[in-house]
Amino acid sequence: MDKFMQAAIDEAKLGLAEGGIPIGSVLVHDGIIIGRGHNRRVQTGSPTLHGEMDALENAGRQPARVYRQSVIYTTLSPCSMCTGAILLYGIPKVVIGENHSFMGEEELLKSKGVDIQLVNSAECKQMMNEFITNKPDLWNEDIGE
Amino acid sequence: MDKFMQAAIDEAKLGLAEGGIPIGSVLVHDGIIIGRGHNRRVQTGSPTLHGEMDALENAGRQPARVYRQSVIYTTLSPCSMCTGAILLYGIPKVVIGENHSFMGEEELLKSKGVDIQLVNSAECKQMMNEFITNKPDLWNEDIGE
Repeated sequence: MDKFMQAAIDEAKLGLAEGGIPIGSVLVHDGIIIGRGHNRRVQTGSPTLHGEMDALENAGRQPARVYRQSVIYTTLSPCSMCTGAILLYGIPKVVIGENHSFMGEEELLKSKGVDIQLVNSAECKQMMNEFITNKPDLWNEDIGE
Repeated sequence: MDKFMQAAIDEAKLGLAEGGIPIGSVLVHDGIIIGRGHNRRVQTGSPTLHGEMDALENAGRQPARVYRQSVIYTTLSPCSMCTGAILLYGIPKVVIGENHSFMGEEELLKSKGVDIQLVNSAECKQMMNEFITNKPDLWNEDIGE
């Protein structure tokens, strides 16, 4: 497993251990993780801190050139909000653990020229499958359903 | 001026008084403001808390049915991130103070069936014009440029 996707998975596991939704993400610039995060809906009552948003938040304020040379890794296909954040900052590449549990706005990202790499990780799929089976209401809340 | 747009403008002014970017928003459900917020880039070093995101964050966790009966008011046309959040939660109506200083993803919102109402507020325009003239670098950072 790519070490950055592994770091995103580690974030997802940390979220699960906290009683949260197991989705993690890291923002990588120049081969270095500059922000890491995981979904915080349960932990802080946040409707905006999805995994990718938390990684962006924890990276802090960055100049445009940094985002434009970065890659964001996420264990799950990015929803419309996280997709919008990726587009706002012009992040050119997204590495996605899996899109079987949830298919996000990958077509929109591609249409804007973002490079999408799908890992199709069995570990990511299993983590989400178990979570969705165990806590369907929480999962539906997280995706606005 | 509609009282909810006025509340969004008041949030923007509060942000400006704090040394921040003057964009405010309120989330209204059943005629009641359930979340209010303003851009927090300067105040908390946040790259994700645009005005609309802050209003959603401050509304806390809400069931899907609440978002789907809500209206979000924002002093400025919503960027791709805020647009994505509106679409994630299925908020059916967006009232926008102005889109002269910045044209957000209104076409995407409309294409997804979101009702857009443009107030075309002179006060909103003046507030943003002055801010962009005074702090162009900060403004560019906020829109990823």
